[in-house]
Amino acid sequence: MSETPLLVRDVPEEALLARIFPLLPGAPTTIVGPGDDCAVVAAPDGRYVVSTDVLVEDRHFRRRWSSGYDVGWRAAMQNLADVAAMGARPAALVVSLVMPGNLPVEWVTGLARGLAAACTPSGAAVVGGDLSGGDQVVVAVTVHGDLEGREPVLRSGARPGDVVALAGTLGRSAAGLALLDAGRSDDGLTATYLRPDPPIAAGPRAADGGATAMLDVSDGLLRDAGRMARASGARIDVSSAALATDRDALRDAARIVAPGGDDPQLEVRSEDEVRTLLDAWVLAGGEDHGLLATFPAGIELPRGFRTIGVVHGAGAQGDAAAAVTVDGESLRTGTGWDHFRG
Amino acid sequence: MSETPLLVRDVPEEALLARIFPLLPGAPTTIVGPGDDCAVVAAPDGRYVVSTDVLVEDRHFRRRWSSGYDVGWRAAMQNLADVAAMGARPAALVVSLVMPGNLPVEWVTGLARGLAAACTPSGAAVVGGDLSGGDQVVVAVTVHGDLEGREPVLRSGARPGDVVALAGTLGRSAAGLALLDAGRSDDGLTATYLRPDPPIAAGPRAADGGATAMLDVSDGLLRDAGRMARASGARIDVSSAALATDRDALRDAARIVAPGGDDPQLEVRSEDEVRTLLDAWVLAGGEDHGLLATFPAGIELPRGFRTIGVVHGAGAQGDAAAAVTVDGESLRTGTGWDHFRG
Repeated sequence: MSETPLLVRDVPEEALLARIFPLLPGAPTTIVGPGDDCAVVAAPDGRYVVSTDVLVEDRHFRRRWSSGYDVGWRAAMQNLADVAAMGARPAALVVSLVMPGNLPVEWVTGLARGLAAACTPSGAAVVGGDLSGGDQVVVAVTVHGDLEGREPVLRSGARPGDVVALAGTLGRSAAGLALLDAGRSDDGLTATYLRPDPPIAAGPRAADGGATAMLDVSDGLLRDAGRMARASGARIDVSSAALATDRDALRDAARIVAPGGDDPQLEVRSEDEVRTLLDAWVLAGGEDHGLLATFPAGIELPRGFRTIGVVHGAGAQGDAAAAVTVDGESLRTGTGWDHFRG
Repeated sequence: MSETPLLVRDVPEEALLARIFPLLPGAPTTIVGPGDDCAVVAAPDGRYVVSTDVLVEDRHFRRRWSSGYDVGWRAAMQNLADVAAMGARPAALVVSLVMPGNLPVEWVTGLARGLAAACTPSGAAVVGGDLSGGDQVVVAVTVHGDLEGREPVLRSGARPGDVVALAGTLGRSAAGLALLDAGRSDDGLTATYLRPDPPIAAGPRAADGGATAMLDVSDGLLRDAGRMARASGARIDVSSAALATDRDALRDAARIVAPGGDDPQLEVRSEDEVRTLLDAWVLAGGEDHGLLATFPAGIELPRGFRTIGVVHGAGAQGDAAAAVTVDGESLRTGTGWDHFRG
């Protein structure tokens, strides 16, 4: 006996808000919470950091794979990672939700629960929001953080000689998405795609530990390292050996997803595809939201960070293509990532 | 000779951002502007107010009526009004923009110009944002304000005996929308719908002038006054005489829009419809974003405010329907607004 779920078009907005509000996490820094024209939030540091990120149905998630809880979790986490990447502690979120009338109310309360579950470990509150109808689900989150007296860690501060370090994982979200696309599932990797778990607390630790530059890896290691390198007027060289464990953790998934995967007749061709997939996931896969940071050489890395490369001067050519190298070689289109395969 | 406009799908995201960034207004309170994981904004007061509002294509605007500039202006203004309604000064906005690939680039740069034009008089900066593809245009703005040492003015502080006052206009946006719906235009009223101009500076003035409660009228006078009355445990009585000038200013538009309007054969039926429309626009029309505030009796109202009613005790029944009265009478469905007509 299947019951028709209650849909948002069947519920007045104020009744929907009354279901959502009790699910949202509060915090002692919230002076005025949801329900007035604005929330009022304490900024004891005299500054706040702020960022906004939007998730759009069928662009960033599919409802057949992601529950409301998953989308709420992910919307919160990708924003919390931006705060962490400045060296700040997450403090307050506001959330705009656009939704079609046929969205189940349970999806929306699930979203609120996912937001809450992702925010609670950081102590961040959801202090306000807006609801609207629309053709597809859109979740726009704005996040605020407290620098607690720290200087913000910008992406532009990397200096030649600095160590390049990473907290968190690489390629797991991309591998999880590829598994879902292939109609497969894996509790670990698909969970990273559906509910990424970036090392939020490592951001303030990195700032306290002397990080000279930091950003969160949302568009892939090479692309985001390139942004850091260009903003810093430097070149970042990544060590392929340092990423071997990241690759190894994804090998089984690549064997499943690669064309010819699971078919022993195609093993040879498939193994080449496996390497290509591993390169793509580890070097270009985003949305694990790990923290990429640089530290002066010789200092002890903060807990959770591991060395993956080194910062060099930009060199005479200083063009965009050479902003990032792997084992000293640039990865121009066509030359491939062969030196990275082993 | 008509030229095909450049579309957003033809332009890489970074190139689009490069066109947008120079158009966005800055402010001295911006410590770190757009381009890093977060912006950093000064909060000299040790607190900030924050609110978010979303505009969705075909729900809140139509592209055939509203240019990108109009939508940017309106998205900013409806958010700035929320800050003003707390008694705060607008300081910083972040903007998430979802857009279909066939949106002209010029529409997006127009949106940036409209945001800038609306923000500049208040001194607010646009400090960050996010771009995404999607099926329809969605503009989600989060606004931040500085209380400059003031206590926030909540909607819950109205006390029996207080004067109810309004800064700004009533019904002009609703009348402007009705004219557009009827295929007509009027420079003044349609402009209020397309580019509302709420009295932002009147918000801090009201707080300094002793306002006990305040909100911005976004959903119509009766509905928003009802929210204030219920939050305050009070009843708000509006004087119909005080709204006569608001009605008179819309009479010509109502004559055009009313069924039978413009047709002298239908003058009698039409005049009744005119009164119904005027009631609907002035009492239930939102989105002029005027500021509704209450002040202790006997004090001089801050510049820009005029008296439109008085606060009473909630009375024994205290039910929702009696939270607002007009000339002492409740406006239950079915009883109509006849006492309001003259």
